[in-house]
Amino acid sequence: MKEVKVMIVGFGVVGAGVARVIDLKKKQIEKQGVKISVVAVCERDGCIVDEEGIELGKLLELKYGDGIQKHAGWNKKMRAVDAIRQVACDIVVEVTPTNIEDGEPGLANIQAAFESGKHVVTSNKGPLALKFSELVEKARKAGVEFKYEATVCGGMPTFNMVKSALALNEIKSIKGILNGTTNFILSRMHETGVTFEVALKEAKEMGIAEAKPDYDIQAIDAAAKIVILGNAFMGKQLKFKDVKRVGIDKIIPEAVELAKKNGFAIKLIGEISGEDARVSPQLIPIGHPLNVGGTLNALMLDTDLAKEVIVIGRGAGQMETASAILSDVMEIAAKK
Amino acid sequence: MKEVKVMIVGFGVVGAGVARVIDLKKKQIEKQGVKISVVAVCERDGCIVDEEGIELGKLLELKYGDGIQKHAGWNKKMRAVDAIRQVACDIVVEVTPTNIEDGEPGLANIQAAFESGKHVVTSNKGPLALKFSELVEKARKAGVEFKYEATVCGGMPTFNMVKSALALNEIKSIKGILNGTTNFILSRMHETGVTFEVALKEAKEMGIAEAKPDYDIQAIDAAAKIVILGNAFMGKQLKFKDVKRVGIDKIIPEAVELAKKNGFAIKLIGEISGEDARVSPQLIPIGHPLNVGGTLNALMLDTDLAKEVIVIGRGAGQMETASAILSDVMEIAAKK
Repeated sequence: MKEVKVMIVGFGVVGAGVARVIDLKKKQIEKQGVKISVVAVCERDGCIVDEEGIELGKLLELKYGDGIQKHAGWNKKMRAVDAIRQVACDIVVEVTPTNIEDGEPGLANIQAAFESGKHVVTSNKGPLALKFSELVEKARKAGVEFKYEATVCGGMPTFNMVKSALALNEIKSIKGILNGTTNFILSRMHETGVTFEVALKEAKEMGIAEAKPDYDIQAIDAAAKIVILGNAFMGKQLKFKDVKRVGIDKIIPEAVELAKKNGFAIKLIGEISGEDARVSPQLIPIGHPLNVGGTLNALMLDTDLAKEVIVIGRGAGQMETASAILSDVMEIAAKK
Repeated sequence: MKEVKVMIVGFGVVGAGVARVIDLKKKQIEKQGVKISVVAVCERDGCIVDEEGIELGKLLELKYGDGIQKHAGWNKKMRAVDAIRQVACDIVVEVTPTNIEDGEPGLANIQAAFESGKHVVTSNKGPLALKFSELVEKARKAGVEFKYEATVCGGMPTFNMVKSALALNEIKSIKGILNGTTNFILSRMHETGVTFEVALKEAKEMGIAEAKPDYDIQAIDAAAKIVILGNAFMGKQLKFKDVKRVGIDKIIPEAVELAKKNGFAIKLIGEISGEDARVSPQLIPIGHPLNVGGTLNALMLDTDLAKEVIVIGRGAGQMETASAILSDVMEIAAKK
């Protein structure tokens, strides 16, 4: 049995999901010859370190009860970057929130992990959208793995699928619906004829849109994803600022209705074709495989050998995102 | 540089495609630290063996010219099973045609490979549809890899995608369009209102259907695929005869028209749900992600963590199938 020691940095929805899945899938993980121990959990205001492995059931109870700050091992003096450098572990699971301004705190966390010879698995788009090539190069020099399946479209297979099932394919173009919140809003407008404002309100009430939904509405989230996809799949040197962005807040019901009458739906499409990288509303024919409804995400790759490949799935959600993170963790474990 | 010695058994469309891709992608393969040498190529009536590596450009010229029997190294006395046992190599790429009656010659080839300690990569559905568990067990005992990405839906990611991107997911049900020929026929009937016979004739003229299209029309091909998917993804012990099969030859234009009027298309769907495994025509809503047109294939997996995942792609074609085979070869090479 290989023991893989993991540290979870950021214990919000995603971090707690990772702990839940490790706990829930213990037997299945052992079946694959692996034992995962969570030796540290970090939050903004402190860390829990237990080199024997933190008891996850109890931790999750606290998370959804009095807060992990009540854990017996809680150390409010320890900062995440220090824990990353000091605690002996194999993989740092970096799942702090995305910050598209300067990538922090994710960027510092990831760099600290590389500098102390630890593999990184992340769901954090910020550092990758801002400094993709630099980080990939640092990981290579440090001789560690840098995996980010969960950064693009949560539970929907992306990077690991291409690496394994499309190994020798050249990816010639990328086109997709990369944000579930805006897809929900546009799908509601298409189906019911409501205004953008009404659909957004509905999305907020259902917990699909955040109180400050700008990252989604202004296509910031989708643009960060298109940067990561273009760099990882097509060897581009894209940075976030290179992506042309048009949000969905100016779309009026009349435009949606006119599109519908002509057999189209308006979708927020992220696209790389040639030198052009953009996220903008586009007309997609109603029968087209990319035309998925609700909060679904969809990605179409045009490849040289396998031709077009389309994958559709859930772009967000606690267990969905944790599924992607654990697929990265298991890939690293398999090589250990 | 790792050297991986490969033997190609069966040099029809798929086998020649494998040789083409190895030749075409030489540099990219080397970039990944691998050198693939094809040390033997076998056909029904003989073999070419060259332990230094067969020159592929020349071989392909003969294949599409005077026949590989004119190759200087052609040995008409050597049978494939003997070559598999005798020639030193790492991977046997078994790409002889599918035979759903007794699995031969694929079955004997695959077993000979296992018995002589060689990994197997195959596109041949017959042996897997008839003796899945036995073959998986034999490979395990022999300590070799047994990979079959190309058996289900050619270039469309299936097994390698699930293994890598959905690592810890339990797959609860499977539903898909697993045959491109029948999907083409049904799509034409849906779009143009023609009869089954007219659409089949068109498919034959376009080279999409074979002269004897029973494997496709009678859902034999799709049933073999559903057996492999169920066994690989859901731990079933299915055999080909366990799958209930209804073909598409009894579908009349009036039924297609009625479905269409009500917002549905008739599709040939392979499905495993609970204990039931079947392939039969079903009504699929026109906006549903599985409702893909032309020769496309589509597979929907319902999983516990990532929820629904749908993948769409090309189920057949020389380069598409070779893409899947090479993804298996590269996975084995990575572990070497």
